[in-house]
Amino acid sequence: MTIRAAVAGASGYAGGELLRLLVRHPEIEIGALTAASNAGQRLGALQPHLTPLADRILQPTEPEVLAGHDVVFLALPHGQSAAVAERLGPDVLVVDCGADFRLTSAADWERYYGTPHAGTWPYGLPELPGARDALKGTRRVAVPGCYPTAVSLALFPAFAAHLVEPDVVVVAATGTSGAGKALKPHLLGSEVMGSMSPYGVGGVHRHTPEMAQNLSVVAGEPVTVSFTPTLAPMARGILATGTARVRPGTTAEALREAYQRAYQAEPFVHLLPEGQWPTTAATLGANTALVQIALDPGAGRLIAISAIDNLTKGTAGGAVQSMNIALGLPEELGLDTIGVAP
Amino acid sequence: MTIRAAVAGASGYAGGELLRLLVRHPEIEIGALTAASNAGQRLGALQPHLTPLADRILQPTEPEVLAGHDVVFLALPHGQSAAVAERLGPDVLVVDCGADFRLTSAADWERYYGTPHAGTWPYGLPELPGARDALKGTRRVAVPGCYPTAVSLALFPAFAAHLVEPDVVVVAATGTSGAGKALKPHLLGSEVMGSMSPYGVGGVHRHTPEMAQNLSVVAGEPVTVSFTPTLAPMARGILATGTARVRPGTTAEALREAYQRAYQAEPFVHLLPEGQWPTTAATLGANTALVQIALDPGAGRLIAISAIDNLTKGTAGGAVQSMNIALGLPEELGLDTIGVAP
Amino acid sequence: MTIRAAVAGASGYAGGELLRLLVRHPEIEIGALTAASNAGQRLGALQPHLTPLADRILQPTEPEVLAGHDVVFLALPHGQSAAVAERLGPDVLVVDCGADFRLTSAADWERYYGTPHAGTWPYGLPELPGARDALKGTRRVAVPGCYPTAVSLALFPAFAAHLVEPDVVVVAATGTSGAGKALKPHLLGSEVMGSMSPYGVGGVHRHTPEMAQNLSVVAGEPVTVSFTPTLAPMARGILATGTARVRPGTTAEALREAYQRAYQAEPFVHLLPEGQWPTTAATLGANTALVQIALDPGAGRLIAISAIDNLTKGTAGGAVQSMNIALGLPEELGLDTIGVAP
Amino acid sequence: MTIRAAVAGASGYAGGELLRLLVRHPEIEIGALTAASNAGQRLGALQPHLTPLADRILQPTEPEVLAGHDVVFLALPHGQSAAVAERLGPDVLVVDCGADFRLTSAADWERYYGTPHAGTWPYGLPELPGARDALKGTRRVAVPGCYPTAVSLALFPAFAAHLVEPDVVVVAATGTSGAGKALKPHLLGSEVMGSMSPYGVGGVHRHTPEMAQNLSVVAGEPVTVSFTPTLAPMARGILATGTARVRPGTTAEALREAYQRAYQAEPFVHLLPEGQWPTTAATLGANTALVQIALDPGAGRLIAISAIDNLTKGTAGGAVQSMNIALGLPEELGLDTIGVAP
Repeated sequence: MTIRAAVAGASGYAGGELLRLLVRHPEIEIGALTAASNAGQRLGALQPHLTPLADRILQPTEPEVLAGHDVVFLALPHGQSAAVAERLGPDVLVVDCGADFRLTSAADWERYYGTPHAGTWPYGLPELPGARDALKGTRRVAVPGCYPTAVSLALFPAFAAHLVEPDVVVVAATGTSGAGKALKPHLLGSEVMGSMSPYGVGGVHRHTPEMAQNLSVVAGEPVTVSFTPTLAPMARGILATGTARVRPGTTAEALREAYQRAYQAEPFVHLLPEGQWPTTAATLGANTALVQIALDPGAGRLIAISAIDNLTKGTAGGAVQSMNIALGLPEELGLDTIGVAP
Repeated sequence: MTIRAAVAGASGYAGGELLRLLVRHPEIEIGALTAASNAGQRLGALQPHLTPLADRILQPTEPEVLAGHDVVFLALPHGQSAAVAERLGPDVLVVDCGADFRLTSAADWERYYGTPHAGTWPYGLPELPGARDALKGTRRVAVPGCYPTAVSLALFPAFAAHLVEPDVVVVAATGTSGAGKALKPHLLGSEVMGSMSPYGVGGVHRHTPEMAQNLSVVAGEPVTVSFTPTLAPMARGILATGTARVRPGTTAEALREAYQRAYQAEPFVHLLPEGQWPTTAATLGANTALVQIALDPGAGRLIAISAIDNLTKGTAGGAVQSMNIALGLPEELGLDTIGVAP
Repeated sequence: MTIRAAVAGASGYAGGELLRLLVRHPEIEIGALTAASNAGQRLGALQPHLTPLADRILQPTEPEVLAGHDVVFLALPHGQSAAVAERLGPDVLVVDCGADFRLTSAADWERYYGTPHAGTWPYGLPELPGARDALKGTRRVAVPGCYPTAVSLALFPAFAAHLVEPDVVVVAATGTSGAGKALKPHLLGSEVMGSMSPYGVGGVHRHTPEMAQNLSVVAGEPVTVSFTPTLAPMARGILATGTARVRPGTTAEALREAYQRAYQAEPFVHLLPEGQWPTTAATLGANTALVQIALDPGAGRLIAISAIDNLTKGTAGGAVQSMNIALGLPEELGLDTIGVAP
Repeated sequence: MTIRAAVAGASGYAGGELLRLLVRHPEIEIGALTAASNAGQRLGALQPHLTPLADRILQPTEPEVLAGHDVVFLALPHGQSAAVAERLGPDVLVVDCGADFRLTSAADWERYYGTPHAGTWPYGLPELPGARDALKGTRRVAVPGCYPTAVSLALFPAFAAHLVEPDVVVVAATGTSGAGKALKPHLLGSEVMGSMSPYGVGGVHRHTPEMAQNLSVVAGEPVTVSFTPTLAPMARGILATGTARVRPGTTAEALREAYQRAYQAEPFVHLLPEGQWPTTAATLGANTALVQIALDPGAGRLIAISAIDNLTKGTAGGAVQSMNIALGLPEELGLDTIGVAP
């Protein structure tokens, strides 16, 4: 049985990465590819690496174009997914790479996105407690944000084991593809090469409530997140550093045990051997998250660090992984675990 | 039937890339992994991206370790392959990523490598006229050098059609992984980031006679190559620019036809649509070569440009492609055609 | 006596580099700063590195704004300089970083730029034979293109000494700032990092006739140039590789002598010791050109390589150097010779 | 009166940057240049950008070689400065870029460096309260570490105004030159390009107690620092993100006022206008620190971010600035405030 998949938003970076993965997926046949202003163009002109699909013509993102597929991936600007999804019918698996259905709190949504809350779908981070079960058989998936993926994987095991206090500081660096293909001066190669810079500082980045939501659910109490994202001179990758005060009596051994327990059976998350630290390069193009932790006894803090490829495990790879689960396919199908390094 | 493959030289960049590809190859089971000074170490400590093989221990590169495999890949320093291959028996497929068996001229070999010539094996660039047939069923493959792969693919169709004069100028840029993992000051990140620099200028680079050999065979006459390699601030990729005077009467149409003829049935080489130029990023981690040409009427020259990933199509991917042919497997098995872009 | 200088086009990369150098120039007082669509904005919002000028407001590029200065630097799009210069009066030193007054051949201009030829001004590459004298006391300077600067310095000594044939192949790599601040998809950081790509292939790049002009004047006969520019993953720098067949009897010694003669008294061009090759990083932010040559006896070719910073020696530094000469100031005033490396 | 300066450790990155700045310093004459294993070599072979000094021969780092200078800069491995300084006499200004004399606590020194404490010299971060006065007329200067420079400038004004709690989390990214020229596999260009990675996690980095010392002195109480350094794919630059809980009642206005007060008269530290964030590129090669702050009301935290060039303001520029103060020269002499951007 071949599964027919459409991609809405095929000219952007998330859409391109979805297609890179779907072309290699043994059960998928690629159907309609749609775009907004780029509709009518050859895909090869916009995504020159997608050579097997180079002659495909982008169609407009309209219900009749997306109809007739088993799976529809949405890689659309925030706020557009609900309207498209409504028209697709309840039997179609809709995998939304946008933010629209990630948050459970309407107040958080409205504060950070400024539009009415569309609802909440099963959350496509299978490694979170309970998440995998919720994805089985679902026909709607909210793919997590790239930063929340990295940060949740770095920190949730410590909260699941009640080893840290619910007040987290996160500083993360992302490759520029995380900012998308929009033509903004600060994203020009001349500006980003050889330079690091922060943005969205002071609690205003839209991924902040999503991180807090994930960690709070696991902790069973509200977790505060101070989140500072920075732009790094690389095309892909997120390195997330999370830290929280440890509760009295927390030992390094207890922390390591908590992380081992969380990840020993996970196909895509690797707790590294002690002394080895993650590099984003090792995850390039793979659906892998590399995690390592340390206990700083002087500061009384856990430092937990994760590396992912923001477009793969952070977006399109996570989307395919969730699709596999939703459709009852082997979870690892079509996904790599080895990054393109060096 | 699973094919058991060993990799000699598994701690270097070529060895790492071979393993990245072999892990994903549906017919391969990975056997012994060997190294020289790194023998005894965990692979994960040296190749942190190879998470599925992280706990493998590197063994010494010795005949008894390499025995009992169907395929042995050699990623050894130049001059060491012959001695290892001799001990492997005629039924084992030996795929040599080193230079030892590439050159047909003993004089060229001795001039550029300074040691006695070991011989010549079928040449693992299937796209060259006659090369694919020579690889079928062979038990010995000489994988081409990374630059000769890029340069031969950029230029041979023009020579096959007798459209250019046998005097070629090539300037190519490589990512630093092409220089290997040796600890040399000029390969430090601090030195290479933000900088371009030439090396091996003036006809002294060892890949020069290999390019000349390939083009001369196709041309049916001796081709002179002026080759200038440069080091670019990127980890992977080769962009090769080759140029030659066109013979009187050569038209742009004739040139394009010659390239279309050469590549229309090739799974891994793409002649781009007119006006679109190759980027190395589009080939990252894929076994793909992107090719484009232009005729400069003022200078009377063909300019032919190719982009590859030096470690994939330029080394390990080319090796796996040749292995597939030699063993009668589908040529594209286990190999990607879409690069990890952006 | 302080010299008052205006910069027209202060919001672009060339304008920014002019200001970086002029702030440090001991004889210059910075006057009006103008822009087109950015007029009215704080300079600090557009050029965050220019902290001492951060609160300056950009004015429109109009004659009354530019009036009353001793020197006016023009960093405008091609075709706009003539109209501005006309209004500035013959006693004002006008230094044009645009192309408008570089070419002596109206036919070349019209072919490559598509507008009527505005004329020819003294050419701001003082190292060319005769050029320094023509700059002394002039009130009009045409600053060379960045590529023609690099290529002329790499090759002219060989032509001055009649050691090579008048048929040149040039392949050069530039940092992305050479493409300016325009918002084009292929200039996004996500696209350029980790990637090399060619552009303007086949004799169509506008700097081609300028290179041919410079070399032809020195050679005393028409020189043909095949020029292929490539974009490298770095913000600044040009590495130019030029090659030409040597005339019969040309020796390596004769070539080295010719280059030593050309550059021994030059403050900004360094012929490196034999065996040492230029890196662009060594010229970062400096007005320096590093040059090295090799004779390839097999190919019968000179390979001449130069490295510059495209924005400094290639644009703004060359402009300040020419200004110094025109005004009778010490040629090196306010200019660095040491690049910011590593 | 010309000041004669020697540089011990001239073949490393700190030594190279000292020489780049000293060549341009109007009052300095460069005397002896020394090295350890590189003694006897041409400087040009090791520091190709230092063209004006290319033919200087490196001498051994011995007392008789360093004798007879007004200033001696030490850019030596930790632990070697005391022995050299002892032999130089009390009238020679010794500026130590190493760590030996930075810490006031012998216990901290011994814990982090493992050798006996050599003592404490006036600390070369003039922007810290009281530091400038202590530098005037001194003949011994301890140049701060690069991270402590960035972190102290980001955070001390908040402590000086008693607006935050004494428990700081810092995550910083550095360019690879911060790791020096040592030949280590993880510093190869192939490894660092396109990758972010942490190191020295968990309170073990040697700059941790230096940061804590600086902030504790300003705060008047012990400040705890959790410090996580990361390696970024760029040659130079530090982006430091520091965060601390604000004390009850702290407003955004009070924070801004504190920073304005601290930096309004500083020539090298710029508090950016609200909404504009630092980029390391804007400081490249300049002695500038760019600082910006935000108050996150949700997390109850100040986020303070600074950008510097680790080799300039972070090492050699800070050293020259302190030398200027010690010798009674204008503090800005020979130092740039504009970075080489883009």
